[in-house]
Amino acid sequence: MQADAAYEDLIRRSREASLLASCSSLLGWDEQTYMPTGGVEHRSRQMALLAGLHHEKATDPIIGELLEQLDGTPLVQDADSPAAVNIRELKRNYQRLTRLPRSLVEEMARTVSISQQEWITARSKADYAHFQPWLERIVALKQREAECLGDGTADYDALLDEYEPGAKSAEIAVLFDALRTDLVPLVRAIAESPIKPNVAILRGEFPVDRQRIFGELVAGALGFDFSKGRLDTTAHPFCSGIGPGDCRITTRFHHDQFADALFGIMHEVGHGLYEQGLDPAHFGTPMGESVSLGIHESQSRLWENAVGRSRPFWSHFLPIAQRFFPESFPNVSLDEFHLAINRVEPSLIRVEADEVTYNLHILVRFELERELLSGQLTAADLPEAWNRKYAEYLGIRPSNNAEGCLQDIHWSAGLFGYFPTYTLGNIFAAQLFAQANTDLGNLDNLLGQGNFAPLLAWLRERVHLQGQRYRSSRLVEVVTGSPLNHAPLVQSLKQKYEPLYRI
Amino acid sequence: MQADAAYEDLIRRSREASLLASCSSLLGWDEQTYMPTGGVEHRSRQMALLAGLHHEKATDPIIGELLEQLDGTPLVQDADSPAAVNIRELKRNYQRLTRLPRSLVEEMARTVSISQQEWITARSKADYAHFQPWLERIVALKQREAECLGDGTADYDALLDEYEPGAKSAEIAVLFDALRTDLVPLVRAIAESPIKPNVAILRGEFPVDRQRIFGELVAGALGFDFSKGRLDTTAHPFCSGIGPGDCRITTRFHHDQFADALFGIMHEVGHGLYEQGLDPAHFGTPMGESVSLGIHESQSRLWENAVGRSRPFWSHFLPIAQRFFPESFPNVSLDEFHLAINRVEPSLIRVEADEVTYNLHILVRFELERELLSGQLTAADLPEAWNRKYAEYLGIRPSNNAEGCLQDIHWSAGLFGYFPTYTLGNIFAAQLFAQANTDLGNLDNLLGQGNFAPLLAWLRERVHLQGQRYRSSRLVEVVTGSPLNHAPLVQSLKQKYEPLYRI
Repeated sequence: MQADAAYEDLIRRSREASLLASCSSLLGWDEQTYMPTGGVEHRSRQMALLAGLHHEKATDPIIGELLEQLDGTPLVQDADSPAAVNIRELKRNYQRLTRLPRSLVEEMARTVSISQQEWITARSKADYAHFQPWLERIVALKQREAECLGDGTADYDALLDEYEPGAKSAEIAVLFDALRTDLVPLVRAIAESPIKPNVAILRGEFPVDRQRIFGELVAGALGFDFSKGRLDTTAHPFCSGIGPGDCRITTRFHHDQFADALFGIMHEVGHGLYEQGLDPAHFGTPMGESVSLGIHESQSRLWENAVGRSRPFWSHFLPIAQRFFPESFPNVSLDEFHLAINRVEPSLIRVEADEVTYNLHILVRFELERELLSGQLTAADLPEAWNRKYAEYLGIRPSNNAEGCLQDIHWSAGLFGYFPTYTLGNIFAAQLFAQANTDLGNLDNLLGQGNFAPLLAWLRERVHLQGQRYRSSRLVEVVTGSPLNHAPLVQSLKQKYEPLYRI
Repeated sequence: MQADAAYEDLIRRSREASLLASCSSLLGWDEQTYMPTGGVEHRSRQMALLAGLHHEKATDPIIGELLEQLDGTPLVQDADSPAAVNIRELKRNYQRLTRLPRSLVEEMARTVSISQQEWITARSKADYAHFQPWLERIVALKQREAECLGDGTADYDALLDEYEPGAKSAEIAVLFDALRTDLVPLVRAIAESPIKPNVAILRGEFPVDRQRIFGELVAGALGFDFSKGRLDTTAHPFCSGIGPGDCRITTRFHHDQFADALFGIMHEVGHGLYEQGLDPAHFGTPMGESVSLGIHESQSRLWENAVGRSRPFWSHFLPIAQRFFPESFPNVSLDEFHLAINRVEPSLIRVEADEVTYNLHILVRFELERELLSGQLTAADLPEAWNRKYAEYLGIRPSNNAEGCLQDIHWSAGLFGYFPTYTLGNIFAAQLFAQANTDLGNLDNLLGQGNFAPLLAWLRERVHLQGQRYRSSRLVEVVTGSPLNHAPLVQSLKQKYEPLYRI
């Protein structure tokens, strides 16, 4: 077969597998939004069937043969060309999928299915001993998985690679250490500041239907295209790109809180803008897909934090919000409001953490999961190691394991190597935003006018439309001219929080 | 292979194909309810992929071999046993699917896709000449389809069989002729009656959110299980049984009309109760599926008309409705209201027709599509034939073809043999309701108490849980002891309308 014909066949197969996966996405979205409770068993059967059909397609040995035929052909000569990129990433996917023995995949699926239930029980009773044997089993399985995927050693990077292709944990550790060195004193200084935000102004009666309209107004202003997307409610907010022209974001509303749903929406809008900005012509191939979890998170954090928690953004939107909720927002000043939505306070629960301390929560998890996987740390010693790090990094100590090492679902679900992508996202976001600020002149002016189109266009061209042309750290380097670097994140936090807290 | 093993394999394949089809159902439901407009192209690709995968599974030659192996085995000896029923119906499905050449299926899909667009154009301009060549093409294709499916002649029954397995058009024609003979004078007598319903009382301001709550209250009272189903809004209401524990019904609300959405809901609830009543243990096999379009329609018409338009039903629900809509329903009496929701008036548009005249609309279409298919009637002569029948049966004549033979989408979509199932549904419903009335004592008492559980339980046992054990006319005969018979329908109409209109 000619290389061109082999490539065409490979792409056709990739598109078909993606199309099938997109059916699962829709079923998954429905499960989280509208499905009646009685449908859960049938839905799990549907999902299993589609997953099986997808796996069959994605691991068809013909794909391996096509990839071999394409090796060394002119198509892969220019490494950044669409064809070379697609071949590179499809090869990576194929190898990951075919290196795992079916028996291991099935054992993992069975184990995490039970262990998530056991985790729920353990957390509700703050009973770590109940969960510990399950964690041990999962760590052992993940070690075997890493051995199969990597070079035969149980290397953390083999797991990290699933979420952040090409990333190296040794480099991330250096980066995160430097970040911690800068963040810990900043968090302490804020804690010691006499300035105390008045978060009570964000509470009151905010009717859910008004919140929805205001949220859609903000989402639309940021650039979310509602002719190609939706906003719905769910218990655990997420964004799901079903396919070209169809991206679903979700949130949850609390009638007595202004900020939670709104910042959740802006976060998911960030994910959604990325999905809506992918090149539809490349749908179903790596050139039309997002780079990594870290880059995806950079988009959500950029819109939620760099844009949504900025003073200029609220100089534009606070008067509008006050017209939406006149009873609850009577005479709040911009300064008071801006401070309230940027409260920083060391806390025990990651998902409730603010922009500054959030990264310290992640660092704890990254360090501990590397040690668990390498065997340096045993599951038995996890709670004490966890609590020690919280005391050291955040200055507080969990009083029980439910607000300690039992708080996250990730490990019970077999997700190792996932956590660092959250903080990578914040680092990427800061690097990208700083560069956008340089390229577009003064972003503050644009945000203050409620004009987000230039920023979105900048991201579209440099990030969204690039698909998987570059892996994450190289993408950031190509766009900003600098290698992966924690300084812009620290700088942006200091620039915002030092004046706010008069440090 | 042993017969038992062959049967097990057959059932496994049937369940898998159904599971895959149920994924398409969910995608189809989403397309009609929540999908953003921009998602239409991607959705059509998803649907085509799933349809292709389903067709591959459903026409796998192994199924043919399994069916052959099962021929004449002890499993098929008791014709009404679950195994024999499943084998019988799976054989029918397999033969229908494999008898159609792929080229014909594809040509039909292409043609109806365009012709539906051309029909929309033609109807909007009342320009039959624009549609005529498309109708000619479709009739020719349907004749070829009938030849492939049937015994080599272009037999209407081969098409009818898709929607009403085993039904014979010659028998239906006799039944419908008898029905027409009784209905035409009844319609005339009502038209000449001095009693004129005051339908203005059904108009006013009925806030959509109140209508939704009232509609769900009625749906729940009838027995629709909202833990296993949903009600959503759409442009063209439908019911979709996704699978065990998950049935979706839809409606559309008009803020200024009380009756449209509500009777639409009761109609779809009828379909939904059938879907919710199928035996989940038999899901994915004929024993867990509905019998036919006619039996499905009998369930919707029974709840919408026999129950929902009855005087006892409203003796219970009118006071509640008046509390829901106090401004719009001030001093309406039960008699006045009951007459208004049972207005009978010959009209030109089928979908707006009342319970009595509706069947005459269907008879026109049944007679004409049989003639078109047999070649007795040419597409060129259709408008005049249509108008002549309307004048004869309903006493009115369309003034243009948009309110005449261009009004329905069915023929443009290639649906021939579909129309008669609407009136078969009404006939089945009347037979079943009359028998339930006998079996349960006085149904009027139960309906007047808002107690629908006995009727639902009766239908569950005799109809829903039977799946496809019997084909439609035999099912009705087994349940009622009488063969297919139009008399109960005529009798129920006379019993209601003669006193209402003082005939």
